[in-house]
Amino acid sequence: MEVNISRIKKDLDTINSFNMTPGKGITRLTFSSEYMQAYNYIIDELKKIGAEITICRAGCIRGRINGSDPTKPAIMSGSHIDTVLNGGPFDGQVGTVSALEVARVIVENKVCHTCPIDIVVFPEEEGARFRFGMAASSAWAGSMELDKLYKAQDNEGITYQEAMESAGIVVEDESPLVLGDVKAMLEIHIEQSVILDRQGLSIGVVESIAGAKWCDLVITGKADHAGGTPMAYRKDALQGAVRIIGALEDIAANDIGPHTVGTCGYIKVEPGVGNVIPGRVDMVFDLRDSDAANLEKLVNKLTKVAEEICRKRGLDLEISERFSIPPVEIPKYLADLLFRCAEQRGMRPLRMMSGALHDSCKLAPVTDIGMIFVPSKDGRSHCPEEWTELQDIKAGADVLLDAILKLAI
Amino acid sequence: MEVNISRIKKDLDTINSFNMTPGKGITRLTFSSEYMQAYNYIIDELKKIGAEITICRAGCIRGRINGSDPTKPAIMSGSHIDTVLNGGPFDGQVGTVSALEVARVIVENKVCHTCPIDIVVFPEEEGARFRFGMAASSAWAGSMELDKLYKAQDNEGITYQEAMESAGIVVEDESPLVLGDVKAMLEIHIEQSVILDRQGLSIGVVESIAGAKWCDLVITGKADHAGGTPMAYRKDALQGAVRIIGALEDIAANDIGPHTVGTCGYIKVEPGVGNVIPGRVDMVFDLRDSDAANLEKLVNKLTKVAEEICRKRGLDLEISERFSIPPVEIPKYLADLLFRCAEQRGMRPLRMMSGALHDSCKLAPVTDIGMIFVPSKDGRSHCPEEWTELQDIKAGADVLLDAILKLAI
Repeated sequence: MEVNISRIKKDLDTINSFNMTPGKGITRLTFSSEYMQAYNYIIDELKKIGAEITICRAGCIRGRINGSDPTKPAIMSGSHIDTVLNGGPFDGQVGTVSALEVARVIVENKVCHTCPIDIVVFPEEEGARFRFGMAASSAWAGSMELDKLYKAQDNEGITYQEAMESAGIVVEDESPLVLGDVKAMLEIHIEQSVILDRQGLSIGVVESIAGAKWCDLVITGKADHAGGTPMAYRKDALQGAVRIIGALEDIAANDIGPHTVGTCGYIKVEPGVGNVIPGRVDMVFDLRDSDAANLEKLVNKLTKVAEEICRKRGLDLEISERFSIPPVEIPKYLADLLFRCAEQRGMRPLRMMSGALHDSCKLAPVTDIGMIFVPSKDGRSHCPEEWTELQDIKAGADVLLDAILKLAI
Repeated sequence: MEVNISRIKKDLDTINSFNMTPGKGITRLTFSSEYMQAYNYIIDELKKIGAEITICRAGCIRGRINGSDPTKPAIMSGSHIDTVLNGGPFDGQVGTVSALEVARVIVENKVCHTCPIDIVVFPEEEGARFRFGMAASSAWAGSMELDKLYKAQDNEGITYQEAMESAGIVVEDESPLVLGDVKAMLEIHIEQSVILDRQGLSIGVVESIAGAKWCDLVITGKADHAGGTPMAYRKDALQGAVRIIGALEDIAANDIGPHTVGTCGYIKVEPGVGNVIPGRVDMVFDLRDSDAANLEKLVNKLTKVAEEICRKRGLDLEISERFSIPPVEIPKYLADLLFRCAEQRGMRPLRMMSGALHDSCKLAPVTDIGMIFVPSKDGRSHCPEEWTELQDIKAGADVLLDAILKLAI
């Protein structure tokens, strides 16, 4: 038994034909008309194989293929179909259509199984519209208050709830997922890094998912005239900031652990004009590690270095934590199962860490989660160049098929 | 004979009552309604003392007090009344109202003089609206093509010419200033640095004005996922940029000359979101030195270091010169005259360099220029905290009065 690669291709092509930025990568913001076309396509495809559709809390799609014992906890699989601005055609989509295709194969082959199999789609994974990443999965699993999500606004002041209702979505089951509802959640995702691609491998089995901390740093100096102020008399907030950003790389790369990463992706300088010494810099640091102690160590070391840099330069520094997500351990039995399924297909799976967060992580408090990675060409993701070979997606979906059957039977 | 400090205070208070950002410093963008109120106030005050008003090229005000020989070249003095965004109450205004007050004293005292005395206001010195600094003075002196200035657009796409005409300004004399029109141009300006303030002095006599080069730097790397991309596999454009910005400070402070300054006041990161490694950074470097060879040395050294940083990191680098203004030497006889005038008033003038550029610099190709600096409290400028004591402005204006009379007689 194996998945049908042509159907996977058709699913991806169809979903990606619903795109707000043709020619400039894929943009499909949650609850936009393009999003709803993709959303309804998934529902229609699930209906074709007799799945029982329920629109759950926060607009999540749950398409259930019943097994012989409806009282058993479900085996769940799926991902998201929203994208970042000008993103790629695979991030989220691969996990969604792989789960759909696995369900088709199971139904077509009339495979006997005991547990229900749930194919799911989580809205707003990227946070590109409502600024909360993994929003619906968090709300469904109960780690984010539903009311907070429903009131979250997009750039135009439209709330999540208003947008969902305008899109015609009627939630049929507002209840959160609780322990016992789901036996295991399995998600395929593109790796979004270079490791599998560089090693020429098709399958990664995730053993842990990095925790993340986002820190806001505000550095305040003195906005003076760029021509009239001698170098020795300056309190240049940007000169302090660049030393801290440099230290971020140095510390993350060398001083903590093998899986530590640190990124400054956002920096804003005030007043931000060429002939004025920067008086204030705002920046956001994204810090990740699969080891909670290392993540703490990274924050502490960086804070110390930043304070020292600012003290020496007579700059004021404020550091605040915007959010913190602890690392997630994948249960060993699930990682081992996925690993064995891949080996039995003749693949060479690689045990690895996920640096990125995914919807599954948010389900970890209420179920066991497992993740399969497929390669990202040249590691690219969140950009139009994002690419994964269909053969690799098929490999991942075949492993998913085998694992779901082993768990559902 | 001396200037009247109360009238100077009233002039400053009146001009600064025309303010687009009350409570948040002074903002008076060229040709805005606030600007035009200040502009018309100056014209009215000049008319009160019988000055002959001509609106010159680019909207410059020229208020002429005729002497006994109208064929002689003029002694010119003045400055600007436009400001940066949220700037201070003295930058430009001090030079404008001092020249106006000096003219009043000369007229009131019926002082005989041979040469015409021209009180001038140059629009758009700061470049805060149309993005060209010293715009009108450059155009009037012929170093900037009038057509280029007239077509320059503000953020809303309104051209300089459209804005000038909407403000009701009708240019009466479109001719550029040429050699022989003006015998000398004298400008008082706030120092915009800490030197006079730290030494407790009232008067600086400028001997040279730093040249400036603005360089645009574009660094291109790879925008990858901040969580999924190990430190060793990154091409983070910002990490390259911060090393270059750091080198800018190190080189300007230590490696070139005593008057070298270098500033990065503008930086833009793309895509500019927290969880994506920066793929591109745009920045502007403002480089200044009173010695042309040092300025060249600074650019060359910085270029070499930037290329090396980018080469090692696998980043692409483009450096282009946006503009270049050579250093200006003040004619020795004028600096000496201003120095003597100050000494004769019992002041302790300081010979110094100007790091900032001023309208006068743009007139250097067509006339001899001289500049007087008055202290900036704590060196602050281009910010709401900008402050100069009235007594110091009076000291500067008295020196200006004496020097103008010596030159005009």
